[in-house]
Amino acid sequence: MGVEDKPVWEQTGSSFIQNYYQLFDNDRIQLGAVYFNLPFQKTQHSITAQDHQPMLDSCIISTVEGQLKANEDPIMWFHQMVLLKSIKVAWICTNDMFRLALHNLG
Amino acid sequence: MGVEDKPVWEQTGSSFIQNYYQLFDNDRIQLGAVYFNLPFQKTQHSITAQDHQPMLDSCIISTVEGQLKANEDPIMWFHQMVLLKSIKVAWICTNDMFRLALHNLG
Repeated sequence: MGVEDKPVWEQTGSSFIQNYYQLFDNDRIQLGAVYFNLPFQKTQHSITAQDHQPMLDSCIISTVEGQLKANEDPIMWFHQMVLLKSIKVAWICTNDMFRLALHNLG
Repeated sequence: MGVEDKPVWEQTGSSFIQNYYQLFDNDRIQLGAVYFNLPFQKTQHSITAQDHQPMLDSCIISTVEGQLKANEDPIMWFHQMVLLKSIKVAWICTNDMFRLALHNLG
């Protein structure tokens, strides 16, 4: 199934997630002051899984599972949820939940 | 901070999550046919972390991280996101994303 065959909410959610982490890792100031002030300076996100669902009111909800490498620290697993709302011609992120998965399966 | 001091969306989200997994593990038929038909018969969920946020339109969004033991299989980590919408006097779950975390940190 090509990108053009996917529903709008799937394309929009995927695009947001891709841009979000690309900006976070490479040009964080664009994400706003809250992220710019994070204590680590160098980050690298790797997305291992993502899911998107349309909501009743034309919003989009997305969850992400991935790996985060901050500075020279060991890789940490994380999961994150964002909620996108359509305001005129733009999508804005109205909710954002991030959690490091610090558990150890060993 | 006591339960009564928490905002409504925090109390509602926590109550939903608690009831959800309690029903899932002990009386799954109440969750509807989709869950009743799952291939494993005996489950045990342990919640290790949960987050709740209010949304702009009085909905509640909740994420959960936890452990799932199904039958006699090894414990698996999972994360789940649910979205709750207030319809008259009840809260209904309009979206549900579940994902097993099959990664290995070792």
